[in-house]
Amino acid sequence: MPPNAADVGEFELIDRIRARTALARADVHLGIGDDAALLAVPPGERLAASTDTLVAGVHFPLDTAAADLGWKALAVNLSDLAAMGATPAWALLALTLPQADARFVAAFADGFAALAREYKLALVGGDTTQGPLTITLTVLGFVPDGAALTRAGARAGDLVFVTGTLGDAAAGLHCRDRAAADAERLLAAPTGLREALIARLNRPLPRVAQGLVLRGRASACIDVSDGLVADLGHLCEASGVGAEIDVDALPASPALLHLFDAEARRAFQLGGGDDYELCFTAPAAAAPVLLGDLARSGCGATCIGRIVAGSGVRVHDARGVPIAPPRRGFEHFA
Amino acid sequence: MPPNAADVGEFELIDRIRARTALARADVHLGIGDDAALLAVPPGERLAASTDTLVAGVHFPLDTAAADLGWKALAVNLSDLAAMGATPAWALLALTLPQADARFVAAFADGFAALAREYKLALVGGDTTQGPLTITLTVLGFVPDGAALTRAGARAGDLVFVTGTLGDAAAGLHCRDRAAADAERLLAAPTGLREALIARLNRPLPRVAQGLVLRGRASACIDVSDGLVADLGHLCEASGVGAEIDVDALPASPALLHLFDAEARRAFQLGGGDDYELCFTAPAAAAPVLLGDLARSGCGATCIGRIVAGSGVRVHDARGVPIAPPRRGFEHFA
Repeated sequence: MPPNAADVGEFELIDRIRARTALARADVHLGIGDDAALLAVPPGERLAASTDTLVAGVHFPLDTAAADLGWKALAVNLSDLAAMGATPAWALLALTLPQADARFVAAFADGFAALAREYKLALVGGDTTQGPLTITLTVLGFVPDGAALTRAGARAGDLVFVTGTLGDAAAGLHCRDRAAADAERLLAAPTGLREALIARLNRPLPRVAQGLVLRGRASACIDVSDGLVADLGHLCEASGVGAEIDVDALPASPALLHLFDAEARRAFQLGGGDDYELCFTAPAAAAPVLLGDLARSGCGATCIGRIVAGSGVRVHDARGVPIAPPRRGFEHFA
Repeated sequence: MPPNAADVGEFELIDRIRARTALARADVHLGIGDDAALLAVPPGERLAASTDTLVAGVHFPLDTAAADLGWKALAVNLSDLAAMGATPAWALLALTLPQADARFVAAFADGFAALAREYKLALVGGDTTQGPLTITLTVLGFVPDGAALTRAGARAGDLVFVTGTLGDAAAGLHCRDRAAADAERLLAAPTGLREALIARLNRPLPRVAQGLVLRGRASACIDVSDGLVADLGHLCEASGVGAEIDVDALPASPALLHLFDAEARRAFQLGGGDDYELCFTAPAAAAPVLLGDLARSGCGATCIGRIVAGSGVRVHDARGVPIAPPRRGFEHFA
């Protein structure tokens, strides 16, 4: 029997995604199309596994382009592997769509594939279902036994670093808000500045190469997805330490510096989510060589504070004046 | 900094699920609580990976009990591993909820844990998000290199079998429908019959042990999730063969036989989804010993037809009269 009409939608969706994301890997013994994928983990490597969901209207604006969603869903998950120092290998995609929209699926698959190609990542499983737009991705990667970065190794005296720049994605989200008090001012800004921030929101770059550089050298690591203070707080809790950070040391992009004053920048940098930079700790003695290696990997890092005994994250400015913890930029179950 | 109030919901949910599903496995080097889990796949084994989504109102009635959902989300995914002949090991859960409902989460986790314990399966990753109720589970298991069952090995002349009984879940869904034309008749039926069918809908039993028995002996295998004719059709397509099945040979439970006439039974058995039995093919010579071993594993199987050259699934009755293919019981993107 040919599949019923009702089937065609689902199987076409999977086939379209497969066609646009096909990537041959010798370690994929069986990919999409059977009841499960069959995969070979290299000897001596541990499997690193993580899952993340993006819900329309909660994790991204409803009018986000499908290609950006495909990219971002993968980037957000690869960022978790990066924070472990793992090498990405495979992904399984669960895509829930209001209707079988071939154009949406094609664009989504193109965005996903553009990032997957950079990491030779193969899509090995999928499920498409009907319902409110929701994307859940599970990513699988490898890390040599004993080499993974975790949140739990920071010690008092370690320095705190962050890769790249902070606050751009939250500022980009603000730039998309036509109801914002300063919307007119932002729309009148020189060409390219708003766009640069919005691109950081829609097409984040997971710091996979930097995670590999940090293996065996950072004492603890986490990716900044919910906001610097919140995520560094998780790292501190897992390590049983506290942290002090200098808000004036936080790395900012030229676009952020140009478009926003110090107060707005601080809110975006301390509390804004969706940066997907790595926040890590390391002994001061290791810093010079480590920072050089990170810069050579394509994304440098900046020292933003230090680990102290105790608990919690305290923020101060360059003169040592305490700064109140920010409102979170991103809220689940608010 | 302690997590903001907005954080607490998410982290409490994960903790509650973890507390109720905690299971120590030596191959889990790092479980829930960091950016990714770290897992050890045994030497010589391939990783089997599958993902499936359940959307409220699409894959289950909106008033399904949370504990049943926890069980069913896992069962549906374990059924995919069973169809590959894989041994379940780990799962990652992405749970999207309209609000942080502690009672729902506790019941969901209890249902999930009840089935997870049977297979010593560990929950190693999770993401809880806010949005319309959607459950995506990714399951990971092992199968020795070269031993996996696939959909692709059926040959003309092989017999077609199915484990357990067919049609109960679709009949159970019908029994829950108070607007059905025969609702009064069904409600007046002897105690336990309706309940038995509804239990098959809400608490399906994945045929994991039977998948292990079939390894190296079945020529092809698939689980019956979308309906027998549709799923056997997928197996035939992957194998490049056709199938002929005898509708009067389809195994039926006592409850199904008691409550429904032949016409209704046929519709449930041929087109109804959610059975999660295994449909497999094997050479006739292997059947007697194989059927004995399956019965000893706790769930026997029944011969329902044979594989033929060509394509598609043809259905006939015991007298050889052709039966029209059924309407599918379950439709995505209808």
